[in-house]
Amino acid sequence: MISIDDVRQAAQRLGNHRDLTPILEVQAVNALVGGRVLFKAENLQRTGSFKFRGAFNKIASLTPAQREKGVVTFSSGNHAQGVAAAAAHFGVPATVVMPADAPAIKRENTARLGADLVLYDRASGDRKAIAAEISATTGAVLVPPYDDAAIMAGQGTIGLEIVEQTQAMGVKPDVLLCPIGGGGLMAGISVALRALLPETQIYCVEPEGFDDTRVSLERGERTANQPGASSICDAIVTDMPGELTFELVRRNLDGGLAVSDHEVLRAVETLFQEAKLVVEPGGAVGLAALLAGKLSLEGRTAVVILSGGNMDLDAFRQRFGLGEAED
Amino acid sequence: MISIDDVRQAAQRLGNHRDLTPILEVQAVNALVGGRVLFKAENLQRTGSFKFRGAFNKIASLTPAQREKGVVTFSSGNHAQGVAAAAAHFGVPATVVMPADAPAIKRENTARLGADLVLYDRASGDRKAIAAEISATTGAVLVPPYDDAAIMAGQGTIGLEIVEQTQAMGVKPDVLLCPIGGGGLMAGISVALRALLPETQIYCVEPEGFDDTRVSLERGERTANQPGASSICDAIVTDMPGELTFELVRRNLDGGLAVSDHEVLRAVETLFQEAKLVVEPGGAVGLAALLAGKLSLEGRTAVVILSGGNMDLDAFRQRFGLGEAED
Repeated sequence: MISIDDVRQAAQRLGNHRDLTPILEVQAVNALVGGRVLFKAENLQRTGSFKFRGAFNKIASLTPAQREKGVVTFSSGNHAQGVAAAAAHFGVPATVVMPADAPAIKRENTARLGADLVLYDRASGDRKAIAAEISATTGAVLVPPYDDAAIMAGQGTIGLEIVEQTQAMGVKPDVLLCPIGGGGLMAGISVALRALLPETQIYCVEPEGFDDTRVSLERGERTANQPGASSICDAIVTDMPGELTFELVRRNLDGGLAVSDHEVLRAVETLFQEAKLVVEPGGAVGLAALLAGKLSLEGRTAVVILSGGNMDLDAFRQRFGLGEAED
Repeated sequence: MISIDDVRQAAQRLGNHRDLTPILEVQAVNALVGGRVLFKAENLQRTGSFKFRGAFNKIASLTPAQREKGVVTFSSGNHAQGVAAAAAHFGVPATVVMPADAPAIKRENTARLGADLVLYDRASGDRKAIAAEISATTGAVLVPPYDDAAIMAGQGTIGLEIVEQTQAMGVKPDVLLCPIGGGGLMAGISVALRALLPETQIYCVEPEGFDDTRVSLERGERTANQPGASSICDAIVTDMPGELTFELVRRNLDGGLAVSDHEVLRAVETLFQEAKLVVEPGGAVGLAALLAGKLSLEGRTAVVILSGGNMDLDAFRQRFGLGEAED
């Protein structure tokens, strides 16, 4: 488990190596949801998502001997870029096990940051096993995508910033909405908010068919998704909640919401047209839930985490072609 | 003419009614241009461009009797939205004369903000004459897009913010690049910079074929463009520099640069993919000039104004379809 002290220590380690991403408010979006929406624009974070924070905190906490042997991770993209950039900062060699069908922009950006890529077939390969084998062979430290104390504490620094930034604005958020995949971001942020803004309601948001956290929260225990679902939210498609993350999520959250691909596309388009922000589908689920009326914001203020923006132009075109055809 | 005092007064009037747009830095962009680029993200300003600032300052400076009769303006889009939003803030009726072929998003947003639209045919109509007639008939005050002291001073508040924000970062910019159409934004910013950062070089950037300011600077007098050119930069396509604006631009600038549509598309795409920002073509010309090597940034720091982001999804798709075909 982690505490607010772990999050504060992570914030000290990160210092100015992370970007202090802005809180942005858009009148047209407020009008659409009938309340006040404050976007925490973590799509503007270096590497295009929040993942740099956790990876940096993890590698910063390694001993010199550990760093020398390098790090290895598995990731569909954003975590890979975060680890690659953080490893490059510390001069630590990084190996990333990535599905061969990951978005081109995520593969290219990871390689550009200096990491070695090991591609595997998502249908037949076991990325955890491949990463574990590399770790066993080379001595490289495994940097897991979410189920790790240092990772959760690093992502939680976003929560500290939200507290400070909203205080500076003279605003006390009623609600926070955050995308959830494995749960590292949500767990970390929830620790910071429960300690410093105990009255703010916290909801995680995930894609329909991959709403394992919502179901797990209802049942009170970690529950896997039914197989066979698909989603455009590649960044947050996970089988079931993490062990460590779910313990914190279970304790700190007020509930979970699920959104359809169509609702997500509407949010991505709204962010493009009204907020002038590029947000990938998995990063836009919080706004999607509000636009779809899954949570009423009437007269209230919500902080909505925009967790990433790594979407290439081809994917953007294809998705919006698709979105229109479904209208 | 305006002075730094006029800009400071405009900043006081605007207060918190404008958004303090962030300065954003992207490592991948720095790597592309071989220097440090600080984006002033005015595409994140309310109404999606800087135009709200000048319009607000203009309407704030009117007498109650003037406000009662309303305001009228002519604009291809961004200025229209700025005037409509500022007029709505003060409860002042607004009429906007707009070309019938202006981007749909700009027409819709202007109407949504409560302004009355008067559409005209760009080929045969004279928007200035139409607006002047409305002003003569109704007594509404004409709010010109750029050639006006209050408008220039309002846009100049961006310059004040750049000075304060870069000082807070401990950075002294070597260069500033700014899109130019009629010149209100550039004139206002140049006044603030010359007063407070006298050593920073200032360059305006415009589309090839519409580089009337570049040519006018070289000749030392206002010079119109040759007819027949076309450009995707709808926001900054003007015939010749304004009278008042050029006087300040001539005095304060170090030079003018011009970029092709293809160079602009590359900048829009880079901003989408690396900065996660939606910037319209006319707002991206500053980065276009740097990416195209029109100004070397080796070892230097540039502030690049991203002046607007009002581009609808259809236009985005079409432009990038076009961009690829030209590759």
